[in-house]
Amino acid sequence: MSEVRVVILGASGYTGAELVRLLAGHPRVRIVALTADRKAGQPFGAVFPHLAGLDLPDLVTVDQVDWSAADFVFCGLPHGTTQEIIAGLPAHLKICDLSADFRLADPALYADIYGHPHRAVDLQAEAVYGLSELARAAVASARLVANPGCYPTASLLPLMPLLGRGLIDPADITIDAKSGVTGAGRAAKEGSLHAEVSEGFHAYAIASHRHGPEIDQLLSRAAGGVVTAGFTPHLVPMNRGILATTYVRLAEGVDADGLRGALAETYDGSPFVRVLPPGQAPHTRHVRGANLCLIGVFADRRPGRAILVSAIDNLVKGASGQAIQNMNLMLGLPETLGLEQPPLFP
Amino acid sequence: MSEVRVVILGASGYTGAELVRLLAGHPRVRIVALTADRKAGQPFGAVFPHLAGLDLPDLVTVDQVDWSAADFVFCGLPHGTTQEIIAGLPAHLKICDLSADFRLADPALYADIYGHPHRAVDLQAEAVYGLSELARAAVASARLVANPGCYPTASLLPLMPLLGRGLIDPADITIDAKSGVTGAGRAAKEGSLHAEVSEGFHAYAIASHRHGPEIDQLLSRAAGGVVTAGFTPHLVPMNRGILATTYVRLAEGVDADGLRGALAETYDGSPFVRVLPPGQAPHTRHVRGANLCLIGVFADRRPGRAILVSAIDNLVKGASGQAIQNMNLMLGLPETLGLEQPPLFP
Amino acid sequence: MSEVRVVILGASGYTGAELVRLLAGHPRVRIVALTADRKAGQPFGAVFPHLAGLDLPDLVTVDQVDWSAADFVFCGLPHGTTQEIIAGLPAHLKICDLSADFRLADPALYADIYGHPHRAVDLQAEAVYGLSELARAAVASARLVANPGCYPTASLLPLMPLLGRGLIDPADITIDAKSGVTGAGRAAKEGSLHAEVSEGFHAYAIASHRHGPEIDQLLSRAAGGVVTAGFTPHLVPMNRGILATTYVRLAEGVDADGLRGALAETYDGSPFVRVLPPGQAPHTRHVRGANLCLIGVFADRRPGRAILVSAIDNLVKGASGQAIQNMNLMLGLPETLGLEQPPLFP
Amino acid sequence: MSEVRVVILGASGYTGAELVRLLAGHPRVRIVALTADRKAGQPFGAVFPHLAGLDLPDLVTVDQVDWSAADFVFCGLPHGTTQEIIAGLPAHLKICDLSADFRLADPALYADIYGHPHRAVDLQAEAVYGLSELARAAVASARLVANPGCYPTASLLPLMPLLGRGLIDPADITIDAKSGVTGAGRAAKEGSLHAEVSEGFHAYAIASHRHGPEIDQLLSRAAGGVVTAGFTPHLVPMNRGILATTYVRLAEGVDADGLRGALAETYDGSPFVRVLPPGQAPHTRHVRGANLCLIGVFADRRPGRAILVSAIDNLVKGASGQAIQNMNLMLGLPETLGLEQPPLFP
Repeated sequence: MSEVRVVILGASGYTGAELVRLLAGHPRVRIVALTADRKAGQPFGAVFPHLAGLDLPDLVTVDQVDWSAADFVFCGLPHGTTQEIIAGLPAHLKICDLSADFRLADPALYADIYGHPHRAVDLQAEAVYGLSELARAAVASARLVANPGCYPTASLLPLMPLLGRGLIDPADITIDAKSGVTGAGRAAKEGSLHAEVSEGFHAYAIASHRHGPEIDQLLSRAAGGVVTAGFTPHLVPMNRGILATTYVRLAEGVDADGLRGALAETYDGSPFVRVLPPGQAPHTRHVRGANLCLIGVFADRRPGRAILVSAIDNLVKGASGQAIQNMNLMLGLPETLGLEQPPLFP
Repeated sequence: MSEVRVVILGASGYTGAELVRLLAGHPRVRIVALTADRKAGQPFGAVFPHLAGLDLPDLVTVDQVDWSAADFVFCGLPHGTTQEIIAGLPAHLKICDLSADFRLADPALYADIYGHPHRAVDLQAEAVYGLSELARAAVASARLVANPGCYPTASLLPLMPLLGRGLIDPADITIDAKSGVTGAGRAAKEGSLHAEVSEGFHAYAIASHRHGPEIDQLLSRAAGGVVTAGFTPHLVPMNRGILATTYVRLAEGVDADGLRGALAETYDGSPFVRVLPPGQAPHTRHVRGANLCLIGVFADRRPGRAILVSAIDNLVKGASGQAIQNMNLMLGLPETLGLEQPPLFP
Repeated sequence: MSEVRVVILGASGYTGAELVRLLAGHPRVRIVALTADRKAGQPFGAVFPHLAGLDLPDLVTVDQVDWSAADFVFCGLPHGTTQEIIAGLPAHLKICDLSADFRLADPALYADIYGHPHRAVDLQAEAVYGLSELARAAVASARLVANPGCYPTASLLPLMPLLGRGLIDPADITIDAKSGVTGAGRAAKEGSLHAEVSEGFHAYAIASHRHGPEIDQLLSRAAGGVVTAGFTPHLVPMNRGILATTYVRLAEGVDADGLRGALAETYDGSPFVRVLPPGQAPHTRHVRGANLCLIGVFADRRPGRAILVSAIDNLVKGASGQAIQNMNLMLGLPETLGLEQPPLFP
Repeated sequence: MSEVRVVILGASGYTGAELVRLLAGHPRVRIVALTADRKAGQPFGAVFPHLAGLDLPDLVTVDQVDWSAADFVFCGLPHGTTQEIIAGLPAHLKICDLSADFRLADPALYADIYGHPHRAVDLQAEAVYGLSELARAAVASARLVANPGCYPTASLLPLMPLLGRGLIDPADITIDAKSGVTGAGRAAKEGSLHAEVSEGFHAYAIASHRHGPEIDQLLSRAAGGVVTAGFTPHLVPMNRGILATTYVRLAEGVDADGLRGALAETYDGSPFVRVLPPGQAPHTRHVRGANLCLIGVFADRRPGRAILVSAIDNLVKGASGQAIQNMNLMLGLPETLGLEQPPLFP
């Protein structure tokens, strides 16, 4: 296959723009269709002027897409609207879905959290949860990948290997997570206004955020038993970035250095996950625009405990970058293709 | 006493400016001297143009102050330089010290944390830790008050009453704290530059911040036994505000509502501490510029645990506002005098 | 009159909140009604939690206001909806209107700019344009004051006295103005989102902003002839503040010092307008939250020209603060009552 | 030449980091030395952690560089220190200097503006002013290119072609320019602190900024006569970006559309300069991280005048990106090599 013909559904949001920005530098991809039902007919550059210089098709409705001329679909539609559309796609297409629709393996849990029955239960069974570094083989053979949420990506990359090796206590995990405002999307909401976000800080959806059950599902898988983690999201007055500060209790005989070593071993050969040397703390600004996850490990002030700090760009490793990483895996391309850009700082 | 003649030592920093801003509206105070050794001779409005409209004395050196014409001293000098200056002040002066110099009751702990022996051990024994709401009587009769640190203020107001009543487990307290950049003062440091702070987020001084032992000292006092809390500070890309998200384990038979009720009872009659109704989360932007602490209490996702969220303006309730509150108490004035301004939002 | 009973129409926007914040410190005012049609029934603190500590009536609809128990009305309704409501108010009420509805003296110009005929032409004839410092007598005897726009306030305070004295060329005035995002109000618009405003800068409504004709009207009045000024607004990634940089050609024999002297003379005795000494440039951060206008005057690089730089807080001197200043004048109260708070910085 | 061996002098500032970031994606370049005298010995990733993932040499002093193993030098040393160092470099090296040292053709003017005699007058005579699009041939044959200042780049790209064609009046040009804070570099200065920059706006160096004479020099060259432009810089609370709003008087018979047409013609075939369609205003956020200049042209409210609005990223087209563009021209490489990345938004 000399060229991958890509369709992006729901291209008028920030994750759509990031897919386009990153794919513009992907040597094997051509974007053949971009959809945005309410903005159909507009040039993409009218919606995102920073990308006006690229040679792109105009926005169309989903109905107008010629599927026979496509190989791969990124689906960035709002949560809940995705299931039926994906269920109706021709079988020759491979799909990476950036919504939450196929992330929860248990349809009953989905119904409970999202408030309506799952509309594509068969597909749900087929979907692979695409936390790339920890699911390479499954992603590589998948037709439908559920791209992980942004908070789960930041939280799971440090936690899952430690749980899998029994190095931390599954009953005592507290994730204090902080996100930039693009996590809320481009919808015009009072709570996302500059005047309501800048120069202030708060926690939201305390103990009730939808990413909590998503995190639990994967932690449970890694631990081989039911795990419920503490999880509190906060809104940082910035656009991009998630930092998760995770408090763990160490297994008998383990210390912070042991955790760091285990993570370094796990991610050896994973170019997008960097375990930092002792004493070095991750900043979100050091991953801005890049498909990276930085992880720092620290001894707690209290014996027997440690602190994991992880940083990602929520729109890249937490969404569009990881989606392209998954596409590369699904298509047998080098994992880093199109994702080599260094971060932009300041 | 019809008029309190106030001296501010170290008036060229942000806490100095806040003292001046707030005292400008205090009906019983006249500022008689402002010191800033390296800027002596300058009008205060040259250092802080936003306050140029006030009728203030020019900056002088500490040596130039006429102590006989003063009643009360706020000391905002850098940590470590304060002890000897305060030790040398005439006995008729009452003093509120905003530095860390008199906060740690144990001189050995001070020497350990701050790297040199305490130079005024006798005064240390006399100093009262001025967390106003929880130490009114002691503050009222004190000659020297050690004004609490900003992180300790935000952390201790929710925690101490709960520990004092045995409602939470003293062995399982994790404080994840986030501060605006004015906590680092006005010194020109690379890490405080706009380009290094804005549009990013990180944790710093992980498990090693000097406010950790200060917090432990007070928690231990409240619990009646040695307490070591988890404490991780983070830098928020904003100027003012601290939000502390504190994870606690509940005592047998207690729930989040019980914690909220106990806090509401404790702070009934305390106009500057507001316990929010269930479901309402504090924002730092709702206390900006005001001497307030907002506290929210939430059930954790995990049974037997709860989350305390507290918000202050680090320069006001976390520094200059609480210092004025303490002055009011020390002088027998109404506690709220000069501190009634509502927050500024947006 | 021992107490002024105040009604605020349209209290759920930022200018409404600022009126409430400032009036909370006004010793002669009691707020008796706050309206917000779509949020009627809610406590004011639910809409603006930073003001939850004040003793305020709940929000009501305009229909529910008991006008017989009111003395003064601030009208902060959206442009265009205001005329008929004000026309229907009982005659005993004095009114300060913060909308644009009564600012343009010529109803034909109004219809042209705002796209519909003026609906209260008689009232328009009666309304006084309330640029306080330059219209004290007219404001003092007015029943209805049209509070100036934010850009006009920042632009006119330096320009009108200079035009009035013939010190600058009315044919060569260029106003390059920059505003924080609260000028766009609290409405949820994509263009006001944090992600669309922060970390960027642009000009908007170039040569077509509605404040252009408002500025021209007053400049023409001052110059005694038709004046059309250049006027370009820009959006600054901040919440509060307007800075206007105005380029003028000097009259024969006049220099920048002459302009500064004339302005200093004009505003001698006006506590809210400060003409800065040579070389000192106004910052919006030095007026944040305060009813101030700072003006700096500079020689241009080009002979025969000068640069005027003026700074206000768009929500205070550019809206709610000047409205209270006008109320004070209309009621014969001291002009500064309730407006003495110093700015908040940082 | 299969590979260009590049040295970056003064690599520890923001322009140094940008050179490294952009060159990382340049297919023909290898960085062989990075200097930073005070940080020599450190890995580059210790100074700029966002670039820690790149394979780069450690920082060295200028003395330690092996010039025989280098082909091209970027010089990002502070203004004034550069002349002697460049004068001492071996003749086989081509050099792009990002400082101001070789920008002013007249050594007497240099001495006047920078306060000391020029120390390499011969080299000054040889240096080519590298405003790439308007000096391609001269740059292509140069050994030493003086990379333009950030404000001059944003100002000159729209103005020079219009002056050159006689479409605007050289005697009536007013440039109102606004920059992000990285223009002040990474030095720790009080005025660059987050608390002093964010949530505020001001003009600085009014009528006295060093880029004024640089702009005049080039405008004069284009106009064929002495031009003095009005020029006022402002500080925007953002990290990257310059927006210049330029007010011009039209030549007889010319209108805004005529200006736009002339600019479109000039920059046809210049991929980095985009003349926007009527009504579309440039935003700095649409060029963030990219080597672009956007230009919009608008009719003024006043007949016979027009407004030019231009936007660049000060660190890219205003510094490091244009420097690489110049390197490409000097080495006969395709002009866009290494510079194709789209902007990063939000």
